[in-house]
Amino acid sequence: MRLEILCLGSELLKDKINQHSNLIAQKLFDIGLLVSQVSIVGDHANDIETSFKGALERSNVVIICGGLGPTFDDLTRECVSKVLHRPLVFSSRILKQIRSQFSLVNRRMPQENERQAYTISGARVLLNSVGTAPGQIIPYKNKTVILLPGPARELLPMLEGVVCSYLKKKYSQKLVQSLVLHIHGFPESEIDEKIQPVLQRHWNAKGMKVTFGILAHQAIVDIKATVEGRNAVQVRHWLQNIEEAFKNILGDRIYGKNEETLESVVGQLLFKRKETLSIAESCTGGSLADQITNIPGSSVYFKEGVVAYSDESKRNLLGVSRAILKRYGAVSESTAKAMALGILKRSGSDWAVSITGIAGPGGGTVAKPVGLVCFAIASKKGVQSWIKQFSGTRREIKSKASLMALTLLRQSLMG
Amino acid sequence: MRLEILCLGSELLKDKINQHSNLIAQKLFDIGLLVSQVSIVGDHANDIETSFKGALERSNVVIICGGLGPTFDDLTRECVSKVLHRPLVFSSRILKQIRSQFSLVNRRMPQENERQAYTISGARVLLNSVGTAPGQIIPYKNKTVILLPGPARELLPMLEGVVCSYLKKKYSQKLVQSLVLHIHGFPESEIDEKIQPVLQRHWNAKGMKVTFGILAHQAIVDIKATVEGRNAVQVRHWLQNIEEAFKNILGDRIYGKNEETLESVVGQLLFKRKETLSIAESCTGGSLADQITNIPGSSVYFKEGVVAYSDESKRNLLGVSRAILKRYGAVSESTAKAMALGILKRSGSDWAVSITGIAGPGGGTVAKPVGLVCFAIASKKGVQSWIKQFSGTRREIKSKASLMALTLLRQSLMG
Repeated sequence: MRLEILCLGSELLKDKINQHSNLIAQKLFDIGLLVSQVSIVGDHANDIETSFKGALERSNVVIICGGLGPTFDDLTRECVSKVLHRPLVFSSRILKQIRSQFSLVNRRMPQENERQAYTISGARVLLNSVGTAPGQIIPYKNKTVILLPGPARELLPMLEGVVCSYLKKKYSQKLVQSLVLHIHGFPESEIDEKIQPVLQRHWNAKGMKVTFGILAHQAIVDIKATVEGRNAVQVRHWLQNIEEAFKNILGDRIYGKNEETLESVVGQLLFKRKETLSIAESCTGGSLADQITNIPGSSVYFKEGVVAYSDESKRNLLGVSRAILKRYGAVSESTAKAMALGILKRSGSDWAVSITGIAGPGGGTVAKPVGLVCFAIASKKGVQSWIKQFSGTRREIKSKASLMALTLLRQSLMG
Repeated sequence: MRLEILCLGSELLKDKINQHSNLIAQKLFDIGLLVSQVSIVGDHANDIETSFKGALERSNVVIICGGLGPTFDDLTRECVSKVLHRPLVFSSRILKQIRSQFSLVNRRMPQENERQAYTISGARVLLNSVGTAPGQIIPYKNKTVILLPGPARELLPMLEGVVCSYLKKKYSQKLVQSLVLHIHGFPESEIDEKIQPVLQRHWNAKGMKVTFGILAHQAIVDIKATVEGRNAVQVRHWLQNIEEAFKNILGDRIYGKNEETLESVVGQLLFKRKETLSIAESCTGGSLADQITNIPGSSVYFKEGVVAYSDESKRNLLGVSRAILKRYGAVSESTAKAMALGILKRSGSDWAVSITGIAGPGGGTVAKPVGLVCFAIASKKGVQSWIKQFSGTRREIKSKASLMALTLLRQSLMG
């Protein structure tokens, strides 16, 4: 079973990011169907016909999005008709539906929209309740061609309704479920090396097919396992076995799974412990506070944050002494400790995190290069500090430092 | 001249939105090259080979992104080698470069990364200064195959540097330059209506071709003008005329052009005036400070920020009185004013901005719904406040409120 998506529209080749194929793939995944390929083609009849022909040869199902509008550059109907050798037929029922869409907003239907009342001979028509372009399901030999309008609000109701149930009935026998485990602070290649014994185990048993993937973005590594099978209980059980196998090897290096993020996991830990947090940032400039407060309900455990960008504000807001700043400099573990203790005292929170470093591109020296960042975490148990070196642009260093602070805090909360 | 992009990675078929092809297309557009087709293919050798073969038959240039990593599912090297019938050759120079990337962060190179030192025979190698996967430019018959690493920060320097100049020399004849003007706080439809007279003027003269585009994202509207011609001076002159025409109509509504952002423009204004800024945030949770400190050199004008997430910290950090909080509530223009005056006094800066509102999804009431945000700006000239209603998710409300604060500050700085 092979399924392809063709997204039509010259704007998708440059100015507009194609989000449809991911959206469609997620809906199809839920009924056990995987997308094998996505092609984006501009509004040129020749290109559309060539890539549609190729997709139809390779795949069982081809879904074409867009190009069903009323204007001259909407070519899907004509191109599909030509490739399938099936004529376009006029439907007065569709025309009536299109007219009614216009009368809803008190407008006369322009002549051009009549083109939208033509469908491929033999197609099952999907009327459009929020726009003018009807969708079409076209059985062709032992294959299926599906035409959907471009705008997401018109496409989605058709996809979630008739299209998914049609495809599920015809193609889907398998059940697909997946699991993503997140790791931060370890290089992809190291994780990859460690998990080889799990990947190489004989998972494809009992009629189940298991695929693994590993993906690194920023300093986060995601391990993904997908299980295909025929029995929901078995599939779930298999995923649990896989999760356990990874956990046996990686242990606490895994900070969360699926939708979980470092900030949500840290939030859950604080929430469970009924403890509060304050933070003092310098080089990250508020990005850690921003991330923490992206979690709904974070006001329960997040008390306050301070962005002490100047030495003056490190003294005034956080009570860092002139002596420490002078002796060790603003970017030092001593200053980080003083910042954390300062915000802990000021806020009366249970935990305090501080970050001070050099985000660049200027301001680096040989002794303290761009990317050098100091961290401290303070609580009633005392204060601890770390020093790390990051690489990248100013934004990347800010973001990597914020993630690292979350990981250090998570370890402290668990330790 | 036909150019195709192949994006590899199973994650792009479902979980991750492919933004690379648009990014690449925009860079290529600037040197006069148009992308004809984009294909997204999963990490399966068979699929990769088939679609690469097809692309190579149809097009003059094929750019393949991703699949150059060290792990088992990185298949680009092997598949391209097979389709082109060219062997993979080992390079000790590349291996040395990869090793040096690891030693920079004091790590041993895992065995697996050795795979990355193999390139297609006859390829021009593009060393990677921020990652381990080298890029490759492969002249093949009268065509060009280009392999680029997946991560944007590794791909972009190669693309903007060697790849663009290689392609420009080999394929581009026309001169293309463009201009983007940014507007915040006005609806797209209003801007669209206003600029019609400019769009409808007769720009396609003197052998030049002008195209316009309008694009709204978040609350920002971008107007883009592209001029194609054969004479660099003429093209630049034409772009200046277009810019002037837009400025005559839109005036100060335009906050910047091309690479400029609201935070960079506000930064420039403060820098020129030799004035400093402090901010007090509640619902935006540090996102305004984060944005402001994304600008290199912002430490010159940004003194400090406070994220006063609780009533307690609004009192302690900013000196907002119990009476104001009780009478008007934390989300009120009065509290916003007190917050701005509080941070102005505490920091001794020339300007202070405050934001307090309801980011949601919880915490809204009939009188103060989710998305209601109050702003204040204080300086030695006094304090002024605003109240605005935003829509969207928690993150969208945070981001829209931060942008609005920057626009209000920009207007105050100019007014």
